[in-house]
Amino acid sequence: MFEGELVDVICINQSSLSSQINTKLLISEKPIFICVISYTATSENPGITIAGANPNLIKYTSPADAEFLYYGHCKCINAVPITPDGKPTPAIITRTALQLSGIPFLVVDAGSKIKPLIPYISFNMESGENIRFGKAMDISNIKKAFEYGTLLGSQLAKVNDFVIIGESIPGGTTTALGVLSALGINAKFKVSSSMPENPHHLKNQIVSEGMQNANIHFGELRNDPFTAISVLGDPMMPAVAGIVNGIINYGGKVMLAGGTQMCSIIAILKSLKCPLNGLCIGTTSYVADDPSSDLVNLLKQLTNDVPIYTTDLHMMESSKLGLQAFAKGFVKEGVGAGGISIMAIVKSKGQIHGNILLRAIEEEYIKVLMEVM
Amino acid sequence: MFEGELVDVICINQSSLSSQINTKLLISEKPIFICVISYTATSENPGITIAGANPNLIKYTSPADAEFLYYGHCKCINAVPITPDGKPTPAIITRTALQLSGIPFLVVDAGSKIKPLIPYISFNMESGENIRFGKAMDISNIKKAFEYGTLLGSQLAKVNDFVIIGESIPGGTTTALGVLSALGINAKFKVSSSMPENPHHLKNQIVSEGMQNANIHFGELRNDPFTAISVLGDPMMPAVAGIVNGIINYGGKVMLAGGTQMCSIIAILKSLKCPLNGLCIGTTSYVADDPSSDLVNLLKQLTNDVPIYTTDLHMMESSKLGLQAFAKGFVKEGVGAGGISIMAIVKSKGQIHGNILLRAIEEEYIKVLMEVM
Repeated sequence: MFEGELVDVICINQSSLSSQINTKLLISEKPIFICVISYTATSENPGITIAGANPNLIKYTSPADAEFLYYGHCKCINAVPITPDGKPTPAIITRTALQLSGIPFLVVDAGSKIKPLIPYISFNMESGENIRFGKAMDISNIKKAFEYGTLLGSQLAKVNDFVIIGESIPGGTTTALGVLSALGINAKFKVSSSMPENPHHLKNQIVSEGMQNANIHFGELRNDPFTAISVLGDPMMPAVAGIVNGIINYGGKVMLAGGTQMCSIIAILKSLKCPLNGLCIGTTSYVADDPSSDLVNLLKQLTNDVPIYTTDLHMMESSKLGLQAFAKGFVKEGVGAGGISIMAIVKSKGQIHGNILLRAIEEEYIKVLMEVM
Repeated sequence: MFEGELVDVICINQSSLSSQINTKLLISEKPIFICVISYTATSENPGITIAGANPNLIKYTSPADAEFLYYGHCKCINAVPITPDGKPTPAIITRTALQLSGIPFLVVDAGSKIKPLIPYISFNMESGENIRFGKAMDISNIKKAFEYGTLLGSQLAKVNDFVIIGESIPGGTTTALGVLSALGINAKFKVSSSMPENPHHLKNQIVSEGMQNANIHFGELRNDPFTAISVLGDPMMPAVAGIVNGIINYGGKVMLAGGTQMCSIIAILKSLKCPLNGLCIGTTSYVADDPSSDLVNLLKQLTNDVPIYTTDLHMMESSKLGLQAFAKGFVKEGVGAGGISIMAIVKSKGQIHGNILLRAIEEEYIKVLMEVM
């Protein structure tokens, strides 16, 4: 068994682990990656997300990401998952890490508006509404998603000793801000963004309007997380919270692979009094080191028992401007990119590290660009 | 590792294996069960199936089976999965064996008409038409199902060293007869039935009419299995064939858990020139010993390399008439009941055997009956 330091993976919120990673928690023989795709009309508020080249395309973002994991190209839309100026979807990192490591994956559809052309696990949910108007989704759908998630999680945990859960939902940091606020967590100016100029004021305004329209005050729903989601959340949240619940109750280990959005999942689980043992967060250093958000502080308000692992993907060293963008505040994370990179590094016992990943990501990026040439 | 004879599991078609089971093929650390649910309007031909208490209920059979695996009761229909005279769905055996053994499972929906209220893997398919009229489904849907199955199978094989695949599709032995005939396998009077009076003449007539309406002759499509399915098959077939293909190409092991229907899958795979190594059939002794069908002969026409394992569930020794019915020619098999029982026995290294299973099945049966009291 591997002991010692892993290149390019560090724990950033637990001092005893920070210099030398605690490999015990992350060691896994049979990990699996679950990508939960979803949609909230909150993403339609102008200026809220970089995902999707234009507003009409946002709904294709998450199914296109899911298709990219399987095929290396998109199917539901005849386009490459790259902004016109060359910034790729983080799914390019996820696909590369999955292929290098041989880690299997499944996609869960929890309310995406366009269905991906792949085999996917359906939770039979509607997409989420714009939380600005004070209503996101029905409570019955939330309960169903949590129940289905729990059922799925317990099946996954029977054969996989570690489950990495990522998400793709444009607008998801705004709904995270909403639910965290309803649950009494001070998240203003702390949630991350897919853009270097984090539109905090716009997010704060959308959440404020939503709370006003629903007649809800900060922290008022701290003991009623399902209502918090129904007012200010999105369909990804109860689905992911349920999957985590199913796994942890079975005694399994889970990594929430994502940025500040994943704190809303932990807040929901904590409010439901679900145990949090065996749980960690895994993300990119681009989220962790982001001066415009504060993942560590958000999590600290919730618990001291969930470690945050981050990985440096050396994107700044890439010769590709589109990949350098990750290190310059664009995209940063998504589709579980950071978490699955961490597991690829850990599972390989260090054979895979940031530089090897970067070279492989560059190759994948060139392949995608070739398609439009 | 367990060596030697396993009580209540035998191999019936390979002489060197018949007295002492070849445990090597079946040994598995991390098996998973996949239940593929589907629908063909062929089941609406009066007299063709026992599934569903009346013709309007047939479409609920497979989703209700899938729900039963998760919950121990049905959700999409307010009914117990038992015929009015007490004969239960074979899902009662499957659920019991899954629970006793701790084997995980996932449900794949390949064209069921009613969707189950569970998390399920969607192949986004339409249900199959009545093959009597010479058209079952579009080729494009068949190709998609095979592709999705292959994608899913390769993911499953990465973490599960053995995959058991069962099915629930009323009317499925008639479509099996259809596809086998189109592929040049003499299957008349050889396919099984959920009833003791096997309606062979009705099945033969439906397939004859279908072939006539499509202007197809026996064996004419032996090199074109997708067209054979599109004329005389059902949506379960390309989905299951694809999953098997994905697993075997990855080097994994698969058990087709079912009766004569599974021979149509092997015929399709053989016609596609897919390798068959690592493949076996697992079923109940009620199918294997059925004087009104001939599983061994069907398979022999296709290959000598696929062993058939069967298990005796001692239903005749049950005090419950509804369970005795399995040994009297009713139901016999379905929802992977026989195969998953075999894996439960093998995985437990003989700790679980037919008698233990029977007691647990009786308990489950009583629980279900209590619901209607």
